[in-house]
Amino acid sequence: MRIALDAMGGDFAPEAIIDGAILATQRLKEDITIVLVGKKDVIQSYLKKKDFSSSRLAIVHADEVISMGEHPTKALTQKPNSSISVGYYLLKTKEADAFCSAGNTGAMMVGAMFSVKAVEGVMRPCIANLLPKLNGSTGIFLDVGANADCKPEVLEQFGEIGYTYAKYVLGIKNPKVGLMNLGEEEGKGTVLTQAAFQLLKGNKNINFIGNVEGRDLFNDKADVVVCDGFTGNVILKMAESVYDIMASKNMSDPFFDRFNYEAVGGSPILGVNGNVVIGHGVSSPLAIANMLNLASSLVRANISEHFKEIYSA
Amino acid sequence: MRIALDAMGGDFAPEAIIDGAILATQRLKEDITIVLVGKKDVIQSYLKKKDFSSSRLAIVHADEVISMGEHPTKALTQKPNSSISVGYYLLKTKEADAFCSAGNTGAMMVGAMFSVKAVEGVMRPCIANLLPKLNGSTGIFLDVGANADCKPEVLEQFGEIGYTYAKYVLGIKNPKVGLMNLGEEEGKGTVLTQAAFQLLKGNKNINFIGNVEGRDLFNDKADVVVCDGFTGNVILKMAESVYDIMASKNMSDPFFDRFNYEAVGGSPILGVNGNVVIGHGVSSPLAIANMLNLASSLVRANISEHFKEIYSA
Repeated sequence: MRIALDAMGGDFAPEAIIDGAILATQRLKEDITIVLVGKKDVIQSYLKKKDFSSSRLAIVHADEVISMGEHPTKALTQKPNSSISVGYYLLKTKEADAFCSAGNTGAMMVGAMFSVKAVEGVMRPCIANLLPKLNGSTGIFLDVGANADCKPEVLEQFGEIGYTYAKYVLGIKNPKVGLMNLGEEEGKGTVLTQAAFQLLKGNKNINFIGNVEGRDLFNDKADVVVCDGFTGNVILKMAESVYDIMASKNMSDPFFDRFNYEAVGGSPILGVNGNVVIGHGVSSPLAIANMLNLASSLVRANISEHFKEIYSA
Repeated sequence: MRIALDAMGGDFAPEAIIDGAILATQRLKEDITIVLVGKKDVIQSYLKKKDFSSSRLAIVHADEVISMGEHPTKALTQKPNSSISVGYYLLKTKEADAFCSAGNTGAMMVGAMFSVKAVEGVMRPCIANLLPKLNGSTGIFLDVGANADCKPEVLEQFGEIGYTYAKYVLGIKNPKVGLMNLGEEEGKGTVLTQAAFQLLKGNKNINFIGNVEGRDLFNDKADVVVCDGFTGNVILKMAESVYDIMASKNMSDPFFDRFNYEAVGGSPILGVNGNVVIGHGVSSPLAIANMLNLASSLVRANISEHFKEIYSA
């Protein structure tokens, strides 16, 4: 398995990224090769400085870098040799089984649409995030920011996409799908959630259990929580801030520690023809290693093929 | 000052409510009389059982009770002698300066609209919630559930209402108003938040500081966080669940303890001609006492008069 990693993306690139790749060679299964994508001389001299070499680290040169603040579409058009563009080229040509970056999220999203493209039938690819559960298991919520405004049909697809992810990647037998809403009862909510409820209820591909509320994120009610990207983004950032506040107070707890982005490492882009994970801009080496681990689980589950199965049926 | 309290509203009514009123007589300033609204014989016999009497507790009889699950509009129409209807009657006729209930939230909201009515010029009254800040201060976010779908003009008014509340009730000199969004930059967000941003930016009545994100709820960035009622409800319930999880793990911290609904006691309904506070269904006596305290602060600040000032200008 070959996982391409954007060596130039992230606030602490390339050092933190390369350190993360080195850490991953020590932690991940031996069949995994990490392909560092970026300025070859920079990567090589850093590896030399660290006195590290491994047959499990490869380098593919990319001359340009898309920085964090750049406009995604413009940057991708103007920088065809950027590490993000080259990473997607490797993914598209199957020289890599997955592509990871802690760089410009918008460029990663747009790059996926331009290169590997959405799975046929998927209206809006989305970004998912893992959800720590109090019982020790892991769920998923989606979208967390790619689609601020959603139609009911899009939320229905998020239900299918999340169900498929929970089944094949998280290994949950018949994942429970819940719709984030402001009350439990059918009929509650916005015009959007009221309509999405009916679509999800009638969807035979999934196990829809009804509405869930903000208080249900961490309990057993649902394995998959469906929401528009605006709501999901607020939830994600609020959860991260709770972790940060606890960390600043030296409070530690096995459950709350799972709110730490470092422990998960990244968020998969789902509904595209390829395995893509995006990471936090501030990613540390540990976060990068865990992002690579997450990417390997997507590859093993062959998740994008499963999305194709739903929509080709 | 006379504060009417729905003795029959809440999961543990009337006992927990009356116990809360008793607690309030011990804690609140001496100029406050609490008017228990509900079945007189039930209230009297409970007070007798507790062997408590005080000139600061009055009783106003109400023959009927609106239960938690009832349809608000139907219930208010069919039960004109319910404790909620009678409570609003006291508020409207100025026999009470404020009205509090831990009962049916929808009925409290609709009751406010039917009786004291929205302040002229206010499109959509809303429910606000206090926001504990890491620096020890207190902010406010609104709406938290009364208005699931909002227009940009309504979010703009929430900014004005929240600003006014923070200024007169929380005593913040020139409160910073932020718009909950999925990114900091102008231009980010949904169609709704993009349009609301422009309105808030152009509003001369308030001190708009731009977008805030889920991670900014508890920091200094904004004193007032504006959001639609769907988003606010998710935030509120998620915060409550974080507190509940910490409590279940015996984790305690002065900051996170302020997430406990009991410490605040309730959420004011803002933008109506009267001081109204609604409480959590599960309200304990402590929560009720604190809800009464919150109501007294609204009365002292004369908050609904300040709303009138904005919209009569």
